Amino acid sequence: MDRHELAAWLRLVLTPGVGRDTARRLLAAFGMPDAVLSQPTSRLADVANAKVARALGQEPPELADALERHLGWLAHAPGERHILTLGDASYPPDLLQIADPPVMLQVQGNLEALRHPRRLAIVGSRNPTPQGQENAREFAKALGEAGVCVVSGLALGVDGAAHEGALDAGGPTIAVVGTGLDRVYPRQHATLARRIAAQGALISEYLLGTPPLSPNFPQRNRIISGLSQGTLVVEAALQSGSLITARVAVEQGREVFAIPGSIHSPQSKGCHALIRQGAKLVESAQDILEDLHLQVPTATPGHAPALFSDTGDALLDAMGFDPVSFDVLQSRTGEPTPQLQARLLELELDGQVARLPGGLLQRTGAS
Amino acid sequence: MDRHELAAWLRLVLTPGVGRDTARRLLAAFGMPDAVLSQPTSRLADVANAKVARALGQEPPELADALERHLGWLAHAPGERHILTLGDASYPPDLLQIADPPVMLQVQGNLEALRHPRRLAIVGSRNPTPQGQENAREFAKALGEAGVCVVSGLALGVDGAAHEGALDAGGPTIAVVGTGLDRVYPRQHATLARRIAAQGALISEYLLGTPPLSPNFPQRNRIISGLSQGTLVVEAALQSGSLITARVAVEQGREVFAIPGSIHSPQSKGCHALIRQGAKLVESAQDILEDLHLQVPTATPGHAPALFSDTGDALLDAMGFDPVSFDVLQSRTGEPTPQLQARLLELELDGQVARLPGGLLQRTGAS
Repeated sequence: MDRHELAAWLRLVLTPGVGRDTARRLLAAFGMPDAVLSQPTSRLADVANAKVARALGQEPPELADALERHLGWLAHAPGERHILTLGDASYPPDLLQIADPPVMLQVQGNLEALRHPRRLAIVGSRNPTPQGQENAREFAKALGEAGVCVVSGLALGVDGAAHEGALDAGGPTIAVVGTGLDRVYPRQHATLARRIAAQGALISEYLLGTPPLSPNFPQRNRIISGLSQGTLVVEAALQSGSLITARVAVEQGREVFAIPGSIHSPQSKGCHALIRQGAKLVESAQDILEDLHLQVPTATPGHAPALFSDTGDALLDAMGFDPVSFDVLQSRTGEPTPQLQARLLELELDGQVARLPGGLLQRTGAS
Repeated sequence: MDRHELAAWLRLVLTPGVGRDTARRLLAAFGMPDAVLSQPTSRLADVANAKVARALGQEPPELADALERHLGWLAHAPGERHILTLGDASYPPDLLQIADPPVMLQVQGNLEALRHPRRLAIVGSRNPTPQGQENAREFAKALGEAGVCVVSGLALGVDGAAHEGALDAGGPTIAVVGTGLDRVYPRQHATLARRIAAQGALISEYLLGTPPLSPNFPQRNRIISGLSQGTLVVEAALQSGSLITARVAVEQGREVFAIPGSIHSPQSKGCHALIRQGAKLVESAQDILEDLHLQVPTATPGHAPALFSDTGDALLDAMGFDPVSFDVLQSRTGEPTPQLQARLLELELDGQVARLPGGLLQRTGAS
């Protein structure tokens, strides 16, 4: 995109009264932004209201600064920074299908992540339980290992854990942020944001320089769900932003998944409400992969717990995935002590079972 | 029911080859058992097979003993012991609606419980988590306080806790047992059985003297669900008897409710499977009352499981609501071992934390 084109896009979106809806109507009526801006006020007033039509005739005072800021940002790391517009061939097709696609998207990282054929959003509380945090990471890791690109919002808690799990799996991950890409928030996730940009992409519809503004975060959620074939809510309180994302995903015709939890945990009540409203209850990443008909790769050692199902091995099935004591395992299986010890040793030597401090046993995920 | 009538019913059900299905067909064809038994073999053979028709002409060798046993049992506590047959006006109408109603029901306790207009079954694991046990009790108590009669199976674990909760609420409760009423099982619940008989009813379709036989327990489950407008599964592993009860409840056109839990708890996997198959996810007794359009009394403190939010206690918050090992808890809190042990003991004595088999720890929901 050259300087002239970028200036026209920025002028369009910076013009007072031009929201996403008006911008799309103007573009649909007249073509690219420079064509819009060259129309007489009378013709613009056929599409936008009279005040907006007049405003389009005047250069917004902040345009010059904004243009330099965006050009400077792009020039600072060419190849790693991109501005995509509704008119761009690289604009993610999934986003074009939503009711309210962003007019401009700033991207830092790899554009390939936006073309990834299989994407799933993982969202949830900024203040999850320790197990919720761990679930976010493990689901993301298993999905990443299965070749799915995890999309989230870089927030503290579930979002951050999901990005980290995806990165651990070596997969791409996309963080949709609610600020300008030069103002990434929260600051605790600065290092994580750099890792995401290196292995996937950070994206934002907000112009460079946009600070964290609370109305922008729920708006941002529609991009998270819109980029994804489905949205997984890991943990969420009632009346939380994650429930907004889930509602928007349903409106966008995308699948919603939720992880259940204790009825006494406030952080599970949002997920339970979603399940009652028709979200799919999931216990593992494989539940999601199966539901979305995403291919599951041949299991290799080290894959996450979430990926595997019934092993056909009664002992492994009895172990479950939590650390378990020998006594509990014996009461579950009814096996005599010598036989059970022998089988456990066999599984341990085979790398399928690990012995934890305190003598607890746990499946490793290699099976 | 007089001696002659009882003898005819017992002879019908004791005749080799006469199962519930054949008995119902014979009764439908000829009327009461003495009418059945007075038919010529040729007419009986129009309804039952030839071998059964011939067998009906002979008195079963165990009839005399069974008759004396049942008469003696009735005489021992007249007014508290009853035998209801398919032909009886007091036979529970809900049971007549199921595909396979019991031919005879022995009842110890109050017949009024069987006519109670609002009944809900609560079933689940014989080996629940401490929280599952507590949930069973609290849901039953809240339902009892709302005027619902709780039906269960007197088994260890969830069943027993449900009966106890209903009794604590001062409500009637019905235990459907899988043995003769003179052989109540398990023995650990002998005292509980006496309390149930005093405040509600123990019932069985098995003749007096029937010992605990494993095939009878799943059969018994259809009576639990059949007596109830809905069935709540509190905790259940996959492939457990509670899932059979839930399946039968669906076949009987009754509602199924399930309590969700941690995806890492094997005792929640059965409930999650039910929810995926269409059971209603419930977080409180009120969810059930609302769904069944049962009146909800004004809420008073102590109803339904505690709905607690942040405790302000860092250790409890770090525990979350899943079973957790001491080591994991220590890594989450960073507390030195002696301090952590002391705090845990304090919380345990206060009833806020339970120690699970294998040394795992879990919040109880009392805070």
